[in-house]
Amino acid sequence: MSLPLEVPTRQLIVQKFGGSSVADAAGIKRVAQRVVDTQRAGNEVVVVVSAMGDTTDELLDLAGEVAESAPAREMDMLLSAGERISMALLAMAINGLGAHAQSFTGSQAGMITDGIHGKARIIDVDPHRVRTALDKGNIAIVAGFQGMSRESNDITTLGRGGSDTTAVALAAALNADVCEIYTDVDGVYTADPRVVASAKKIDTISSEEMLELAASGAKILHLRCVEYARRFGVPLHVRSSFSQHEGTWVLPSPEDKSTVSEGVALEQPIISGVAHDRSEAKVTVVGVPDIPGKAAEIFQVIADAHSNIDMIVQNVSTHGRGATDISFTLPIVEGADALTALKAAQDRIGFEDIEYNAEIGKLSLIGAGMRSHPGVSATFFRALSDAGINIDMISTSEIRISVVTRADLLDDAVRAIHSAFGLDAETEATVYGGTGR
Amino acid sequence: MSLPLEVPTRQLIVQKFGGSSVADAAGIKRVAQRVVDTQRAGNEVVVVVSAMGDTTDELLDLAGEVAESAPAREMDMLLSAGERISMALLAMAINGLGAHAQSFTGSQAGMITDGIHGKARIIDVDPHRVRTALDKGNIAIVAGFQGMSRESNDITTLGRGGSDTTAVALAAALNADVCEIYTDVDGVYTADPRVVASAKKIDTISSEEMLELAASGAKILHLRCVEYARRFGVPLHVRSSFSQHEGTWVLPSPEDKSTVSEGVALEQPIISGVAHDRSEAKVTVVGVPDIPGKAAEIFQVIADAHSNIDMIVQNVSTHGRGATDISFTLPIVEGADALTALKAAQDRIGFEDIEYNAEIGKLSLIGAGMRSHPGVSATFFRALSDAGINIDMISTSEIRISVVTRADLLDDAVRAIHSAFGLDAETEATVYGGTGR
Repeated sequence: MSLPLEVPTRQLIVQKFGGSSVADAAGIKRVAQRVVDTQRAGNEVVVVVSAMGDTTDELLDLAGEVAESAPAREMDMLLSAGERISMALLAMAINGLGAHAQSFTGSQAGMITDGIHGKARIIDVDPHRVRTALDKGNIAIVAGFQGMSRESNDITTLGRGGSDTTAVALAAALNADVCEIYTDVDGVYTADPRVVASAKKIDTISSEEMLELAASGAKILHLRCVEYARRFGVPLHVRSSFSQHEGTWVLPSPEDKSTVSEGVALEQPIISGVAHDRSEAKVTVVGVPDIPGKAAEIFQVIADAHSNIDMIVQNVSTHGRGATDISFTLPIVEGADALTALKAAQDRIGFEDIEYNAEIGKLSLIGAGMRSHPGVSATFFRALSDAGINIDMISTSEIRISVVTRADLLDDAVRAIHSAFGLDAETEATVYGGTGR
Repeated sequence: MSLPLEVPTRQLIVQKFGGSSVADAAGIKRVAQRVVDTQRAGNEVVVVVSAMGDTTDELLDLAGEVAESAPAREMDMLLSAGERISMALLAMAINGLGAHAQSFTGSQAGMITDGIHGKARIIDVDPHRVRTALDKGNIAIVAGFQGMSRESNDITTLGRGGSDTTAVALAAALNADVCEIYTDVDGVYTADPRVVASAKKIDTISSEEMLELAASGAKILHLRCVEYARRFGVPLHVRSSFSQHEGTWVLPSPEDKSTVSEGVALEQPIISGVAHDRSEAKVTVVGVPDIPGKAAEIFQVIADAHSNIDMIVQNVSTHGRGATDISFTLPIVEGADALTALKAAQDRIGFEDIEYNAEIGKLSLIGAGMRSHPGVSATFFRALSDAGINIDMISTSEIRISVVTRADLLDDAVRAIHSAFGLDAETEATVYGGTGR
């Protein structure tokens, strides 16, 4: 009697490592070993790297020393040196382990972007040089965060979340089997483990839910990378560069969940997780004339100041007939500009006053299952009420409920909601270092 | 009576700054000011920069930490990050002064090379992006030392003297009026001012003589850059980045000397200067069979070991009939490989022994005027004899006499020759810091 031989499937795997994973020579060598192990297990491997640990900050410091402000084109030229260093060193470390690696800049890897320096968008990916390197049996290392402008052929950078987006875009263009995002935690958790010690790692989550989690302040994956993965159907695997454990699979459509692991239940859980965010402030425009078009005028002023509004609430009038209050949240960093713009428009729009509060927190409960479970809202608000937490603003989508509370009550609120939906694990989560770009 | 207005001619000037000139933010800002001043005087300016001071060494250290040896392709990718940083910072500093600058990598500036990583040769220059930047009134900053391989599109570096060569190649391709090489001394001196305190700055020198000076160990300009400038007729102006003084003009043909300054005498001086070199060692192959072809066999062995032979002397036989000694000099760094190769071929070639001596120095006297002044050799050897210095080897060209002496007598020899040919100045030369790549 003979056992059937299990033939491992050859996969094309894109692995992305952030700046904290390649912060020094030891980190680079550890990453190199993991990459080589992945290839030796029979896979094709493309690696996307960020700049080493503090490189970006050091370059920004130098820029600040030579001039008060810098042209965006030159800033991109400067910052793109960071990945050039880390990717060449990683290629050397891989070669030192007896495997073969070639590094490619964003431009060489065919990352074609628009011309908006500092936050360019990818408009095309032509990875033929990467494909050729793989065909020759090489590991391809690609600089994250950077590309080349189609119009000007100038070097661009992709802005926040850029390296994750590079990895997903390459995975889509190469038709990769998976895009692995290495980070300093084991995966995506049902809540931030630093706030909720009993938070559980999520094994699989739909990209729709992950999108809501990312938009709601979960820092582990950037919104933009999740959007890209969802649009192009790229399975993401978020995992730790410090362990060999399976992390969290973020899957383009719910049906795909069953393909990952036989052990995963086919039925979705009602709730995926709880996200929180302290980076927003609340603006209340008081005494807005109750005339059609006034709200539009206000939001046009904010848009012209390039601020991104998140939640909006138009209060019931408390000023007698003819006036109302409009509250909204926006990133704290954009608060000053928005207030200046609003004050300049006060006479024209005709409102009475502006109130500004940066001491707020936002809590979001996310779960695709809540679509068909009408009891979720009731449980949610009862839990907050039982914990003595007042709610300032509410906004909902089909798979999300978000509320704004006082900042100092936010952690209590997150723990209360996490428990109320039965998300608590029996063991505590492990948390490692910081995050890169 | 009215004086004629002097209209300054608009020139295209290529300025090259080494790593010590841009070692820190203060240096970059000082260079920026000089570049902007040059543009505001009515000129078009292209700037070639090396990596900042210690950047290259720091990158090499990192490479040594991640792997014992590195593929040459990846080493070039790594090292080319150095100029990317310095050029972007210089562009920022220039923009901070109210002028407009754009930086270009070697590849963007059209520096096309062969594929020999680490010591690539320029095979074509297509500076159309640099030309466009100038046409828009911008200052163009170009990364020195780097290019792109025509065959593979990979990043290459040009090796020693690379940034100077980039500058001259760009100057030739753009038909520039002058290529200014900024360094830490005021120009080319009649001897190394650290050895001969009374050395004089040379105002003009032919590229033919400069070539001999560079080949004879004068470190101020790399042989390769002078060769390139001579071939393409590019006037070089070697000057200090710490002063506004005129430096040394290196002119493609002697007739051009008169175009530079009316004050320069049209008649050439007999002697340009004295160079010295401690970087070579002497190898003597003892007891070589006096049969035709044996010398060729020896030099083929050395060539196969990739060593560059400088001086060669075949001694009068002192071994009785049938055998002779052959001595030659080569760079000390290539000595070990050459000896290994020779020993391996000893039985085949049939020589008796090898002697190796790294304690030698080479002194060279250079002057295009010595062609027509037969008394030069006599004065030269009498001066050495009067100073009590024994001569080990002699080699000559039409415009050069070189001798090998004991290393510890070299400085005395340089001073004796410098005085004997009346090169001593009345005031002492000023010497500044170190040199870049």
